[in-house]
Amino acid sequence: MLKQPSAGGDDGLRFSPLVVVELSPDAKEEAIAWLLSKISDSEQNGGAGLLVNQLWSGTAETEKDNRNVFLVGASRQRLLSGAEDLGLFKEFNDGSMRAFTSANRDNFKDFKGDGDGFLSTAECQYIVKHELDSLRAKNETHIPGYEKAKLYPGKSIIRRMQSKGILVQVFPLHETEELKRLSFSWYKKVKLSLQPLDEIRHYYGEGMALYFGFLEYFTFALVPMALVGIPYYLFDWENYDKYVLFAGFNLVWCTVILEAWKRSSATMAYRWGTLSRKKAFEEPRPGFHGVLGFNPVTGREEPLYPNTKRLLRIYLVSVPFVLLCLYLSLYVMMVYFLMEGWVLSVHDAEPTFWTAVLSFVPSVIYAVVIEVMNLIYRYAAEFLTGWENHRLESSYQNHLVLKVLVFNFFNCFASLFYIAFVMQDMVLLRQSLATLLITSQILNQVMEAFLPYWLQRRRNKKMMRRARKRAIPGQTEMPLADQVRLEADMSTYLGTFDDYLELFLLFGYVSLFSCVYPLAAVLVVLNNITEVYSDAFKMCHVFKRPFSDPAANIGVWQLAFEAMSVIAVVTNCALIGMSPQVKSYFPESETQLIMWTAAIEHGLLALKFILTFVIPDVPKHIQTKLARLEFESLEALKKKKMLQATVQ
Amino acid sequence: MLKQPSAGGDDGLRFSPLVVVELSPDAKEEAIAWLLSKISDSEQNGGAGLLVNQLWSGTAETEKDNRNVFLVGASRQRLLSGAEDLGLFKEFNDGSMRAFTSANRDNFKDFKGDGDGFLSTAECQYIVKHELDSLRAKNETHIPGYEKAKLYPGKSIIRRMQSKGILVQVFPLHETEELKRLSFSWYKKVKLSLQPLDEIRHYYGEGMALYFGFLEYFTFALVPMALVGIPYYLFDWENYDKYVLFAGFNLVWCTVILEAWKRSSATMAYRWGTLSRKKAFEEPRPGFHGVLGFNPVTGREEPLYPNTKRLLRIYLVSVPFVLLCLYLSLYVMMVYFLMEGWVLSVHDAEPTFWTAVLSFVPSVIYAVVIEVMNLIYRYAAEFLTGWENHRLESSYQNHLVLKVLVFNFFNCFASLFYIAFVMQDMVLLRQSLATLLITSQILNQVMEAFLPYWLQRRRNKKMMRRARKRAIPGQTEMPLADQVRLEADMSTYLGTFDDYLELFLLFGYVSLFSCVYPLAAVLVVLNNITEVYSDAFKMCHVFKRPFSDPAANIGVWQLAFEAMSVIAVVTNCALIGMSPQVKSYFPESETQLIMWTAAIEHGLLALKFILTFVIPDVPKHIQTKLARLEFESLEALKKKKMLQATVQ
Repeated sequence: MLKQPSAGGDDGLRFSPLVVVELSPDAKEEAIAWLLSKISDSEQNGGAGLLVNQLWSGTAETEKDNRNVFLVGASRQRLLSGAEDLGLFKEFNDGSMRAFTSANRDNFKDFKGDGDGFLSTAECQYIVKHELDSLRAKNETHIPGYEKAKLYPGKSIIRRMQSKGILVQVFPLHETEELKRLSFSWYKKVKLSLQPLDEIRHYYGEGMALYFGFLEYFTFALVPMALVGIPYYLFDWENYDKYVLFAGFNLVWCTVILEAWKRSSATMAYRWGTLSRKKAFEEPRPGFHGVLGFNPVTGREEPLYPNTKRLLRIYLVSVPFVLLCLYLSLYVMMVYFLMEGWVLSVHDAEPTFWTAVLSFVPSVIYAVVIEVMNLIYRYAAEFLTGWENHRLESSYQNHLVLKVLVFNFFNCFASLFYIAFVMQDMVLLRQSLATLLITSQILNQVMEAFLPYWLQRRRNKKMMRRARKRAIPGQTEMPLADQVRLEADMSTYLGTFDDYLELFLLFGYVSLFSCVYPLAAVLVVLNNITEVYSDAFKMCHVFKRPFSDPAANIGVWQLAFEAMSVIAVVTNCALIGMSPQVKSYFPESETQLIMWTAAIEHGLLALKFILTFVIPDVPKHIQTKLARLEFESLEALKKKKMLQATVQ
Repeated sequence: MLKQPSAGGDDGLRFSPLVVVELSPDAKEEAIAWLLSKISDSEQNGGAGLLVNQLWSGTAETEKDNRNVFLVGASRQRLLSGAEDLGLFKEFNDGSMRAFTSANRDNFKDFKGDGDGFLSTAECQYIVKHELDSLRAKNETHIPGYEKAKLYPGKSIIRRMQSKGILVQVFPLHETEELKRLSFSWYKKVKLSLQPLDEIRHYYGEGMALYFGFLEYFTFALVPMALVGIPYYLFDWENYDKYVLFAGFNLVWCTVILEAWKRSSATMAYRWGTLSRKKAFEEPRPGFHGVLGFNPVTGREEPLYPNTKRLLRIYLVSVPFVLLCLYLSLYVMMVYFLMEGWVLSVHDAEPTFWTAVLSFVPSVIYAVVIEVMNLIYRYAAEFLTGWENHRLESSYQNHLVLKVLVFNFFNCFASLFYIAFVMQDMVLLRQSLATLLITSQILNQVMEAFLPYWLQRRRNKKMMRRARKRAIPGQTEMPLADQVRLEADMSTYLGTFDDYLELFLLFGYVSLFSCVYPLAAVLVVLNNITEVYSDAFKMCHVFKRPFSDPAANIGVWQLAFEAMSVIAVVTNCALIGMSPQVKSYFPESETQLIMWTAAIEHGLLALKFILTFVIPDVPKHIQTKLARLEFESLEALKKKKMLQATVQ
């Protein structure tokens, strides 16, 4: 049943698969045929103009294997016109980044001959995905063979098939050779160099490269804090005035590194051409539902859902639910303190080695409980945010991130706040901070890297065994069919959310109470170094290749980190104000002390805001380049008009 | 010497003057002829393609009159193409605002026939001004007749002539009839309706209309505060708990009105078509100088000035100077308190009616001194900001506003802060606040309205007498020549800076210490009502007509007002914390009280930021409209491409 490509030029014969479309094994023939014809039909006929091939073209070897796996590719011509539609930025002859247009294709730097190798595979896959996503129903009322899978004009076909379970998954293929090269330069060789961010971007897209860029930047940014922290820890400097110095240093440092990150992120995004790329009009997310109506912006028929209803759901259900969860988390915290008190009383009554060990048990249990609660809450938050029925994926993501952030922050740090400001017990604070930080680091590394790795290994072995059985002797490369089968079974990478969240919480441990436990920065730096390796490994070998995501910045996380650094100013000032060294300066009046602390804190906050304002987010030389591009396009427009006027 | 218009279509004969160009009386003939030829030359020849007429075409009546006054107009065709170049937004057939293009001129709402009356006079004058400003030297090395007035390719001719004193002024003409109608509906009739903002915008442009809109909005927004304040004042409620309620109300109110203003400003800017208008590339401001080089953005030859040098000037000279001035202002304040103390001691020793009157004298003197210092500082700030040599007018304005704001804020409120938080004397605070507020209001009204009015009246009378001498009996309308002469002698309106600054300081008096003097809001409301009338009067009769300025918002002032409302949260919380009523809740521990105050203050600040974030700056329905425009232009582009592809 090999489909002949119906569209495409002279290079249509050299079919190179880009994206895998896996349909359910029991999908009806007519639905499959309909989808395939939609994919391969020319654009004039409402198709995507892509090439499609069935993976097993004839002999299915085992009955268990899913026959309904299709490979999608595209002619070079199609990909270039797709790149133009998407407004992809590529490097121009003069070194600037410009939106690709066929008209002046020869002025782009790497465009040679007919454009072979001009687009990276990640870009091609992104284009194919976009074309698949924008396959829309015309006058079909339902998917052929599925009466219940309703369609209306303009509904995305892929999304409807996905939500009805007819389509199992769509994922891009790995390139074995390039992956090998990337993983070697990334984490396999012992090296002193940085991560190959440009290569990561080339293979995984901008969003992923920005995450790894941020991880690397964050690690380096913490090194000075770690270096300053080590002598404090070794020589027990906490009992001296230098303690205030350390907190002061941290405050300034947190602000500076976040501002500097914005600039370096803008520099990267400019180099990668995502900084000035205009976003296309956003389509509704797959799960969005509502009464059919006309979109006030596009005039197209699509489900509508009143904003007031959504706001009611948010403020009357989601917000109370989050508050309830926060209360529950507080309750668990109080139980922990009861346990802690009981253990301590046991230890004080009869101090032995085992009671000393026992004294750490409540903290460890609490740390585990926190992680479990975070996990459960995460599911609840996803359900709730889905139920809020956001039209756009971006607004869904923002609401989800916000919900998860608030709870995680509260869950992880509430006990520390309680110990610091209600109990005012600095020794307990240091101990809790250390236990929480270390436990959560260990748990994270296990959950995030070793567990998926182990599962993947088991799965791989089984697959390899089966593949070897039917492999042609002497052939070292894995046949395409096996590669597809192998990758289809890999776990799906769910985006950078959890990775950023982890960094966010680590940032909290370092910045909020840093002066109490100077070793925190050291631990986080060590954790981040292993994190780079384990994240790199899991991207290359544990997960399916994700579609690239042309991000220009780290989005809502920049805000989250900035909010954390504001809170850090408040907590650190309070800690300093409470320190006995500072108290001794105001022996007669505590009121005076608090007043001064508050005044200095307000001054620092004001300074922070002024700094945020004064330091431009985009470096000067990039601003100039962007301005030049804009100016040139304006001039071109003017010239065109002048020309027209002269001709007339 | 009546110049024949060299460009322009069939309507070139009906010359209607728009803008007056006044050259120095002793300007050299060759320079004048050169400028006039530049103005009237067609665009292809590097001219502006405008029409120009000498005012006195033959018989100069008095020797004193300046003969070198020229009237500039333009053909309808020229104005329409200028509107297109500038990207002026006009109302479309479907009620939305779109950038005007000749291609679909007939789809614009008020475009009838050949476009008579389509552009308002203010718009025409703005176009003419833009065309005059962009008259650039080609290969002239200096202005003919003036060896020292150097030119280089691309230098604005008008600006060079202005900086060399050859050109005295360029100003738009009033329309007598329309001005009469506007001033009648604006301030002459006794009315309950609002200001005619659309008409103001039509006559003076968006920047001015936004100022009057803000003034009106601000006045209405203060009415609830005034209403709440009156009973507090009348029944001496300050001594009760309600005092806390009043401060709490003010806090919330300040935040809400500023957020609501952003939305209502966006609504107006959308209606007037400035919200989505793209800014053209900004040219260097007239006073900017530097070594000739190539602009990295445009590639054009123009003076360049290194940014580092400017930053050095700012941080090594301007900032220290501002700090010195602040110190001086503090010094003056301390002298005031010495005087105040001496007067009080005299009054206490022998209390008579005259010593009671005397006790107000230091405050009044201080208020006057503050105003004088503000004035002197203003000149210094203008000089310094000019010396910093900013390339763009906008950046010059921002630096100037910042300098003036900081000093004015400090100068006006330092003494109040000192009384409130160092002396903690609420009675003195109330008295000082009242004196400062009332004195500055009276001074402002005198300086701003009566003085220019009186000067103008004297000047007008002289002019009218002269005009009447040569007037033709029976003719009621003033001849054009007299009108031009009259307007040329009027003062130039220097922009909305001082008007906004005044509102900013009034907002400070109301919000910072409102709970101490509840009558402040009442006084400010009364002041604003008269302000509307005096500002309207001075715009119509005291000043030259200003060029319109297509602003989309009140710019840096929004930020200034928001900063003030943040400071107000801090001061009000502190005042509440210091009140005896609140203190009585914490009889045993002052520390507890301060902690609670600080905690609540932090909560309020956090709430403020969350509110700023949650409330969208642009109302939903306008967001939708903007999105629709963007979507339509994207679709049009796509269709065009599709069509091209089909044709090929």
